[in-house]
Amino acid sequence: MTRSWWGWGTDEHAVAGAELEALTSRISTLLPDHDLTDHAPPDPAALGLPPARISPPSTLAGLASDASADRAAHAHGKAFRDVVRNVHGSLDHVPDLVVRPRNERDVVDVLDWCSREGTAVIPYGGGSSVVGGIEPRFAGPAVSLDLGRLDALIEVDPVSRAARIQGGVLGPRLEAQLRPHGLTLRHFPQSFEFSTLGGWLATRAGGHFATLYTHIDDLVESLRVVTPVGVSESRRLPGSGAGPSPDRLFLGSEGTLGVITEAWLRVQSRPRWRAQAAVRFDSYPAAVNATREIAQAGLHPANCRLLDAAEAFINAGVGVAGGLLVLAFESADHPVGTLLTRALGIAREHRGSTPDGVVESGPESAAERTGAADDWRASFLRMPYQRDALARRAMIVETFETACTWDRFEALHAAVIGAAHDAIARIAGGGIVTCRFTHVYPDGPAPYFGIYAGGRWGSTVAQWDEIKAAVSDALAGAGGTITHHHAVGRDHRPWYDRQRPEPFAAALRGAKGALDPAGILNPGVLL
Amino acid sequence: MTRSWWGWGTDEHAVAGAELEALTSRISTLLPDHDLTDHAPPDPAALGLPPARISPPSTLAGLASDASADRAAHAHGKAFRDVVRNVHGSLDHVPDLVVRPRNERDVVDVLDWCSREGTAVIPYGGGSSVVGGIEPRFAGPAVSLDLGRLDALIEVDPVSRAARIQGGVLGPRLEAQLRPHGLTLRHFPQSFEFSTLGGWLATRAGGHFATLYTHIDDLVESLRVVTPVGVSESRRLPGSGAGPSPDRLFLGSEGTLGVITEAWLRVQSRPRWRAQAAVRFDSYPAAVNATREIAQAGLHPANCRLLDAAEAFINAGVGVAGGLLVLAFESADHPVGTLLTRALGIAREHRGSTPDGVVESGPESAAERTGAADDWRASFLRMPYQRDALARRAMIVETFETACTWDRFEALHAAVIGAAHDAIARIAGGGIVTCRFTHVYPDGPAPYFGIYAGGRWGSTVAQWDEIKAAVSDALAGAGGTITHHHAVGRDHRPWYDRQRPEPFAAALRGAKGALDPAGILNPGVLL
Repeated sequence: MTRSWWGWGTDEHAVAGAELEALTSRISTLLPDHDLTDHAPPDPAALGLPPARISPPSTLAGLASDASADRAAHAHGKAFRDVVRNVHGSLDHVPDLVVRPRNERDVVDVLDWCSREGTAVIPYGGGSSVVGGIEPRFAGPAVSLDLGRLDALIEVDPVSRAARIQGGVLGPRLEAQLRPHGLTLRHFPQSFEFSTLGGWLATRAGGHFATLYTHIDDLVESLRVVTPVGVSESRRLPGSGAGPSPDRLFLGSEGTLGVITEAWLRVQSRPRWRAQAAVRFDSYPAAVNATREIAQAGLHPANCRLLDAAEAFINAGVGVAGGLLVLAFESADHPVGTLLTRALGIAREHRGSTPDGVVESGPESAAERTGAADDWRASFLRMPYQRDALARRAMIVETFETACTWDRFEALHAAVIGAAHDAIARIAGGGIVTCRFTHVYPDGPAPYFGIYAGGRWGSTVAQWDEIKAAVSDALAGAGGTITHHHAVGRDHRPWYDRQRPEPFAAALRGAKGALDPAGILNPGVLL
Repeated sequence: MTRSWWGWGTDEHAVAGAELEALTSRISTLLPDHDLTDHAPPDPAALGLPPARISPPSTLAGLASDASADRAAHAHGKAFRDVVRNVHGSLDHVPDLVVRPRNERDVVDVLDWCSREGTAVIPYGGGSSVVGGIEPRFAGPAVSLDLGRLDALIEVDPVSRAARIQGGVLGPRLEAQLRPHGLTLRHFPQSFEFSTLGGWLATRAGGHFATLYTHIDDLVESLRVVTPVGVSESRRLPGSGAGPSPDRLFLGSEGTLGVITEAWLRVQSRPRWRAQAAVRFDSYPAAVNATREIAQAGLHPANCRLLDAAEAFINAGVGVAGGLLVLAFESADHPVGTLLTRALGIAREHRGSTPDGVVESGPESAAERTGAADDWRASFLRMPYQRDALARRAMIVETFETACTWDRFEALHAAVIGAAHDAIARIAGGGIVTCRFTHVYPDGPAPYFGIYAGGRWGSTVAQWDEIKAAVSDALAGAGGTITHHHAVGRDHRPWYDRQRPEPFAAALRGAKGALDPAGILNPGVLL
C-alpha cells in the first residue's frame, strides 16, 4: 500500500469504479449544474520545492529526509483545504526536513539540536490534522518530527487492564497488538486508520464512545513526554488529587509543550453483549429532547448519535422528517437489553418509533453482529476518501464541530445552520448542511456539521475559508466551543483566543516558557 | 450553634454523655493501660497571640478582623495534628487578619492590596484541610481570606441540569438551595457539613460516588477564578477539546493560582431507586479480587467500599474474617436491582456471601430507605467528632489515603500496613490499623487507612508525624499517590515533590509566575 501524499489514506483505497460512479451520480442529482471535472494531484517530486535550509548534525543524518515527496507529504494535514491545496500544488510552507526517530533518545537529541539552533519542531503522528496543526505556517526553517517508528506495545498489565504504548502507533496496529491479550482501547476516531495514539493525546481526540469516555483523556493513566528541558513521566495512577493533574496539561497541548513518546492507557475487555436500535422522529426538537433525556438518565449508551434529516438521508440512506437516533449499548460483562429498552421507552415518550426493531446479541451471536458493525464502520471510514474524490471535482465538502449546553443548543443550531446556509448561498449558490451529534453529555451535545456545496475550481479553498469564518463566528457567538475534538491547530486560533480565558492564556505562556524556553515546539499553535 | 475554634464542627455537637461513655469504654477494652484523662482546649482569646503586623486599607477595614478568636480559628485546619496543637494552645503561625469579602469585587480588592504590599493571602473555605493547607507556616504576615459570605446559588439551568454556585457555600446550604429545584450535587465528602464548594474544587475533593464521578473535578462545567492578574472564567461547556483544559489547571491548585469565586456544576435529579447489599468475605485477597472485577464490569455502583476486617469491626460493628464489601446502586431514572444482582454474582464467584440479604427500594418505598441511609451518613459524620474526643485523651487517631493500580495493590497494602504497624509499635507500643476503599476505578482502588494508638500526652503530634512519615514513605515507594482526595497542602509536600514530574513542576512554576507575579497566594503550598 502507498500512503497518499496529497489526500486521505492509501492510493489503493482511493474512490474508483462503481463507488466513484455512484458518488458522482448522486452529486449530479443534487447539483445538476456542477462541473464534475476531475483534477489530478501533481507528482510531489516535481513540485519544485525550495531546498532545505537546514541540515542535521551527523548523529541525526541517518534519520532525516529532505526528499521532496517526504517534505510535501508532511506539509499539510488532511482538512479539505489541505487536500485541495495539495491538488493545486500550492505548498507555501513545507518542512525543511522530515526526521524519524527510532527511540526516545533520538527524540531528545532532535529537541536538543533544534533548541540550540532555534529551529522549529513540529511533532507529526499520522498527519491527519484537520486544523492546520502540522503545517509550518511561519517564516523560519522547520523539522517535521515523524514519530511513526515509535509504534510498539511495550507492556500489558492485565490485572489493572492497562497497557503501556508508544505514541507513534497508528490505530490498527495498536489494536492488533492488544488483541492477543483479549484487550482493546476502543478508541475509534474517524481518522483511526491514519492517526496515532500520540496525536490523539496531543489533540484530545474524540473516540468511539458517545457517552462517558468520550475523549481519549479519560483513558489515560499516565504520560511520558519529552520536553526541551527534560522528560516528564507521571506516575501510573487510577486517580489522584495531588495538585493539578500533570497529564491534563499535556493533553491538548498539540505539540507545543513536548512530544508524547509513551502512555499507559486504560484498556478494556472486548465487548460480548450488544443491543442496538435506530429511532425515527418526525420532529427534530422532539428528537433532541429524547436524546437529552437519554443522556441524562445514567444509561451510558456506547452510541447515541442523533442525525438530522439531511444527515440521515445523505450518510445513512434513511428518509425521515425529524431525525434518526442511532442507539447502541455494549458490555464485556453482562447483557444490555434492559438498558436499551429503557432508552427506547424515553424515546417513545417523545414519539420516536423503531420500525426496524431492536437487534440484541450475546456471546453466541457475536460473529453476526460484528459483521454488521464492521459494515457501518467501513462506510464511516470511506467518508474521507469520498471527500477527496469530490474535492478533486470542485466540490466544497467539509465538516466542523462543537459542543454546547442543552439550554443553548436550539439557538446554536439555528444560528449555525442559518449562517452556513447564508454563507454557502452567497459564496456557492447554495448547498446542503447536515448535523449529527457525535457525543452527548448530561449537560449538552457535541454537534458535528457537514457542508456540501458546488465550488469553482481554483477558488474552493477561499470559498471554504469564508464559509468557515461565518459558521465559526456563529457557533462561538452562540456559546459553543470552537472544537470538541478536532483541536485548535492554526485554523481555529482566532476563535480559540476569544474563547480562552486570558489569565489561562498567561498561565499557558508561563508553562510554555518553562518547558520550551527556545520556543521551538510547533510555533503558532495555541500560543 | 457555635463553630468550634479548635476542633471539628460545632461545640454543641461535641461527643458527650452516653456517646462519650461508649467511646471511652471501647478504648479501655482495646487499650486497658491507656490514660484517658481529658485535656480541654484553652480560651482562644487568652492565647496571647502576637498583635497583627498589618492593617487593612480603609476600604477593606469593615471586612477585616484581628480578634484573637478569629485568628486562632483560622490558623489550623482540622487534621489530628491541628486539633491537638489547638488543645495545647500551640499556635506558632496565625494569620494577622481574617478578611471576609462580601462579593467578588472585595476579593479583587484584597488581592490587589496584598499584591502591592507583598502580603500572603490564604484562601479559606470551611477550614477543614487535613494537610496543613490553610496554615500560614512562613515568616511574613498573612491574610486568611474567608469566603463564607459568597454562599449563594446564583442560577439554575434545569434543561442542562447545571447550577451556578458561589465558592464559599458550605455543603448543607448548597444542597438546601438546590433542593427546591429537585436537584442535588450529590458530592458528600466526610467534611460535607463544614467544607465549601470552592474548597472542594481547589483540593479536588472526593465525594459520594465510589465509581465514575469520584472527584468533584468531574462535576465541573466551568470555573470563575480571581487571580492577581485578572478574572479567569471558562466557557460553560459539556466537553471541549480546545487546548489543555483551563479548569483542570485550577482544580487542585489549592489556592496558589487564584480564588475560585463561582462555578457552574453538573447537578443531578434526586435518586429514586436504590439497591444495596453488604457482602462478607472470609479471605481479603478474594474480597479484593471481587471488588476489582465489579469495578471493571461497567456496572458503576454508587457505593463500592471494601472494608478490611479491622475497619468492618471498628466502624461497622461487623465481625468478618476477610472483608465487608458495601455495595449500592442508585438512579433517578430506572430500577437498579439487576445491576446489584450482577455485582453480587461476581462477588459470589469469589465466595462472598450476603447473610443480611438485599435491600431494594423505589419511589414508593423511598421514605423508609432515606431513613436508613441517613442513619449511616449520620454515623459517618460523627467520626471527626469522636476523633476529637479521643485526641483530647492522648489517643493517636488519624487517617491517610492513596490510590494505586490493581497490580500494585497487594504489595502496597502489605508495605503500608507493615510500615504502620512497625511505626506504631515502635512509637506507641502498638495499636490498630484499618483499611477501606473509598473509591474504586477499573484500573485501581483508592485505599483509605485509619490508625488508632495510645499516645503520650504532650507528644502525640510528634508521634503521629513519625508514623505519618513512615507510612508515606511506604505508600510512595509502593507506587501510590501521596493523596487521592485529601490534597497536598504543606504536610504532603516532601512526597508530592518526589511524585510530581520535574518538568511539570517547572510548568506549574511558570504558570504561577504569570498569574501571581508577587507570589502572595498560599506560599509554601505545591510550589
